[in-house]
Amino acid sequence: MPVLVMKFGGTSVANLDRIRRAAKRVGVEVAKGYDVIVIVSAMAGKTNELVGWVNETSPLFDAREYDAVVSSGENVTAGLMALTLQEMDVPARSWQGWQVPLRTTSAHSAARIEEIPTDNINAKFGEGMRVAVVAGFQGISPEGRITTLGRGGSDTTAVAFAAAFDAERCDIYTDVDGVYTTDPRIASKARKLDKIAFEEMLELASLGAKVLQTRSVELAMRYNVKLRVVSSFEEQSDDAGTLVCSEEEIMESNIVSGIAYSRDEAKMTLISVADRPGIAAAIFGPLSEAGVNVDMIIQNISEEGRTDMTFSCPVEQVTRAEKALQEAAERGEINYHDLVADTNVAKVSAVGIGMRSQSGVAAQMFKTLSDEGVNIKVIATSEIKISVLIDRKYMELAVQALHDAFELDKVA
Amino acid sequence: MPVLVMKFGGTSVANLDRIRRAAKRVGVEVAKGYDVIVIVSAMAGKTNELVGWVNETSPLFDAREYDAVVSSGENVTAGLMALTLQEMDVPARSWQGWQVPLRTTSAHSAARIEEIPTDNINAKFGEGMRVAVVAGFQGISPEGRITTLGRGGSDTTAVAFAAAFDAERCDIYTDVDGVYTTDPRIASKARKLDKIAFEEMLELASLGAKVLQTRSVELAMRYNVKLRVVSSFEEQSDDAGTLVCSEEEIMESNIVSGIAYSRDEAKMTLISVADRPGIAAAIFGPLSEAGVNVDMIIQNISEEGRTDMTFSCPVEQVTRAEKALQEAAERGEINYHDLVADTNVAKVSAVGIGMRSQSGVAAQMFKTLSDEGVNIKVIATSEIKISVLIDRKYMELAVQALHDAFELDKVA
Repeated sequence: MPVLVMKFGGTSVANLDRIRRAAKRVGVEVAKGYDVIVIVSAMAGKTNELVGWVNETSPLFDAREYDAVVSSGENVTAGLMALTLQEMDVPARSWQGWQVPLRTTSAHSAARIEEIPTDNINAKFGEGMRVAVVAGFQGISPEGRITTLGRGGSDTTAVAFAAAFDAERCDIYTDVDGVYTTDPRIASKARKLDKIAFEEMLELASLGAKVLQTRSVELAMRYNVKLRVVSSFEEQSDDAGTLVCSEEEIMESNIVSGIAYSRDEAKMTLISVADRPGIAAAIFGPLSEAGVNVDMIIQNISEEGRTDMTFSCPVEQVTRAEKALQEAAERGEINYHDLVADTNVAKVSAVGIGMRSQSGVAAQMFKTLSDEGVNIKVIATSEIKISVLIDRKYMELAVQALHDAFELDKVA
Repeated sequence: MPVLVMKFGGTSVANLDRIRRAAKRVGVEVAKGYDVIVIVSAMAGKTNELVGWVNETSPLFDAREYDAVVSSGENVTAGLMALTLQEMDVPARSWQGWQVPLRTTSAHSAARIEEIPTDNINAKFGEGMRVAVVAGFQGISPEGRITTLGRGGSDTTAVAFAAAFDAERCDIYTDVDGVYTTDPRIASKARKLDKIAFEEMLELASLGAKVLQTRSVELAMRYNVKLRVVSSFEEQSDDAGTLVCSEEEIMESNIVSGIAYSRDEAKMTLISVADRPGIAAAIFGPLSEAGVNVDMIIQNISEEGRTDMTFSCPVEQVTRAEKALQEAAERGEINYHDLVADTNVAKVSAVGIGMRSQSGVAAQMFKTLSDEGVNIKVIATSEIKISVLIDRKYMELAVQALHDAFELDKVA
């Protein structure tokens, strides 16, 4: 029988009523003839409670014990979901990570999935079991200890199972009903997308759209897993939500698929850096070691052996970045006149695979912002994305204007 | 290094502060040179919460899923205890049942321990680990699924580990400070015993003294594990609490060690049963199948082919017993004139290994009760125990009078 993977996040299994509602959705797919693998998160709030206890017990905790404690939330949901399905006469059983076994690296709290053997679960499907309920977010290390995949790891678990079992689709049930052209709280004309390409979803996820974890989208793209984002709280139907898939499956699309934004950015400029081969490494090496997530980088044209280097990072990392650069200067690794931080900027991006074949998107974007009187501070482009840094006070205006300009409220 | 097993019950690990206090006690034993195996229960209340969810989800639950859900409470405590010990610079790690692996039968929710391999944990002791924190109450079945040992199973886990690792002692930390000659709430002169024999403890445990699970005492007796009951909430010392040990280690003891009682008993009499070979089986077979815990049984002298059969059982099982006997009569398996239930009785017992060599204990007991005007309804004796059923209203009086008569407030 064809296999379907269904993943339910913490709010979708927050209490016994919601678990029952989720189980009913699983029952509908079983009735259609699917063997279903259900991936569950911990009941909303439970993981935070466990993490709180660990942090209070041991601020510099042993990550192996952290994983052993924190993974228990998913085990509870998995058992309760299996029991709920059994009550509905759907043959089901639960699996903890080590029982599958879902093998991971030993990088506790941030482990990567290495292997998902299918024989145990397939044998049970062969015996008439219709639903395997698997505790998400967890696995077992080569040393036989419990690992976790990091926050949001249940999405990644779901996609990895879909790949391993060659599932027809991987449905991610969550508290939003799909992926939108932009944030509906900012642009009332925002439209839910029926389909979006993996590459676009990746850009949107890394830009802060919290619908899916970046890692899970990467994994889905690599193994070509059809990923559907759908709401747990709306009517069930086959074409609900948003399908994340390869671009070949998207017949027509707008040139730009979505406008993303990131509110809390900072723009930092090292003024008059002594330019020499390797200077970029000398600057960004220490920043990386200090855990600063550098996003956009712009180097102005060098004059007389000196250059200005501008980069952006999350606003809460500015102090850390300043400290790392001062220390590098003290060690004599870099030399600059001044370091200027602008903490009142936001990033707005236009994303779309259509950009690859269509020119003029950047020009249209710059003209739109100019018409609204929005000054662009930094520009960065990739094959399917154009991002600009602007003053934060213009962010909502820019998102709305670009959404209108690219006619995202209309289907292509 | 010698091994010590320390078990902490739910109230002793009810929150992070109590876990810290328990960890300090472990640290004291490590400092003395012991390698310590710590067995932990779930934080007080957690198991009840999980059991409640399972019951609400599925009243006739799959015991395998019940075990998977309910065992998670102990896993949390084990990880937190290991982290707390690490914070105190005591090398420690946690073990879940399947990691040991603690092998059990497949009787989910009431599994029996089959094997505890020592190689994994001993290898870690060899590498410098000083404390193995083990999640109590749980194991793994031959099918690779999580099992639980039933309520109070953590005591049994602790004794089984002490036996497997040839531990010097098994300390059970709980919220009482030891075993008493009788319930101090009933007899103010009740005295804490320094030592008590396994056999006596078994009788007291099965009579409702809730200090230790009957199974754990049986196991300790079979493997001659020195078992100490000690309070988590009092000063730590080597001779605190009560040592449960073989009678050879008890130099002197009173003839009677303790007076036990059971408040909610019922006395049931089948009047004028047609007597024939096999009649006892015909009566008590159906009762056993109906889940009635028959305790004392008395058959009056038979006259003219008919006899009266009296037995006792917990008062809440009377309805079930009546139904089972009526059905047996309807099936023609037994024949009686009447069934009379007296639900206003209590059981009072005197327990002591000294009875084996001393005659006159029963006579003294009956005389004491007679002097107080207490009428005895049923008598049952074993090698080290005399039990009587009396009207419930005399229970406290009987316990106090017997405690005085056998001078249990004085050390032998």
